Amino acid sequence: MTNFIGDTHGQWKITRLQAVIGEPLENASHVRTEENAVHKSNAGIWTLRGFASNIRYTEKNEKEQLLAVQEGLGRQQATCAALIPIRKNEIWWALAQDERRAIFEKQSHHTELGLKYLPAIARKLYHCRDIGEPFDFITRFEYAPQHADAFEELVQALRKTEEWKYVDREIDIRLIRV
Amino acid sequence: MTNFIGDTHGQWKITRLQAVIGEPLENASHVRTEENAVHKSNAGIWTLRGFASNIRYTEKNEKEQLLAVQEGLGRQQATCAALIPIRKNEIWWALAQDERRAIFEKQSHHTELGLKYLPAIARKLYHCRDIGEPFDFITRFEYAPQHADAFEELVQALRKTEEWKYVDREIDIRLIRV
Repeated sequence: MTNFIGDTHGQWKITRLQAVIGEPLENASHVRTEENAVHKSNAGIWTLRGFASNIRYTEKNEKEQLLAVQEGLGRQQATCAALIPIRKNEIWWALAQDERRAIFEKQSHHTELGLKYLPAIARKLYHCRDIGEPFDFITRFEYAPQHADAFEELVQALRKTEEWKYVDREIDIRLIRV
Repeated sequence: MTNFIGDTHGQWKITRLQAVIGEPLENASHVRTEENAVHKSNAGIWTLRGFASNIRYTEKNEKEQLLAVQEGLGRQQATCAALIPIRKNEIWWALAQDERRAIFEKQSHHTELGLKYLPAIARKLYHCRDIGEPFDFITRFEYAPQHADAFEELVQALRKTEEWKYVDREIDIRLIRV
């Protein structure tokens, strides 16, 4: 489990904390990360908590393309980051696997979009729906300052997809490394 | 979250507790269930813990067939039950979604097999891999005594599938209602 703790101090300074859709999140000035925390941190102003898991929609050919070019979080030059927690509505979760996959890729080109910005924009997905958290997913992005415009373009493109019509809560948290 | 607690007392009496493959589970005489437990129960001899989630492989036509005939757990006449925790190996988890789906249904007929025994044998799947538990899944089955042979047939058929080649730990726990 990973805890993202919004607080008054931390390794990452918040430069924007904006509710894109739905209920906002309380203001905080910094975010720090606690990896492998067994229990939910009750420290700080808020804690977003999730776990990395196996891939849920990615098919073999896409997986191979991703593996060939993607880089991990924590790169030295990646001093900019975003933390984007989202929740999807009940209509999404009642869909069958093939229906969700069709919206995810055939209609929304989710993987294809992300691939376009690799390796510049590193991305990691955390799941939280199944552990009773207020969000379904948290995605963390990391990139160097010169790719800030490319990241903005990626985020805007994702928000225009068919898939995003099912998102009923989204917070956009932008960070710079202290 | 649901906790299945192996103990010296409980609503269900254990009639068999057998390691089918891999490390066994300590002996217990009864199982009791605690629903919606936030924390892992440290009571009893062992606790298996999991959460119900959205469907991961089932497609629209299969989902409709299942919904049309399946019945829930807790039926009065269903005095027999089985609790089958399994773990799949790393090869399975490294596969892409389409590869896992192909093994699950095209090669193993998992949903089709289960459908054959509905509504007699009710089934509920709990996930546990993502919360750091020793098993990946726990399936609970419930049926009336006259369907015990049919259940045996279903379990044997599942164990012969391509999908089951990826199972590296399985415990078969059979129960009768006290």
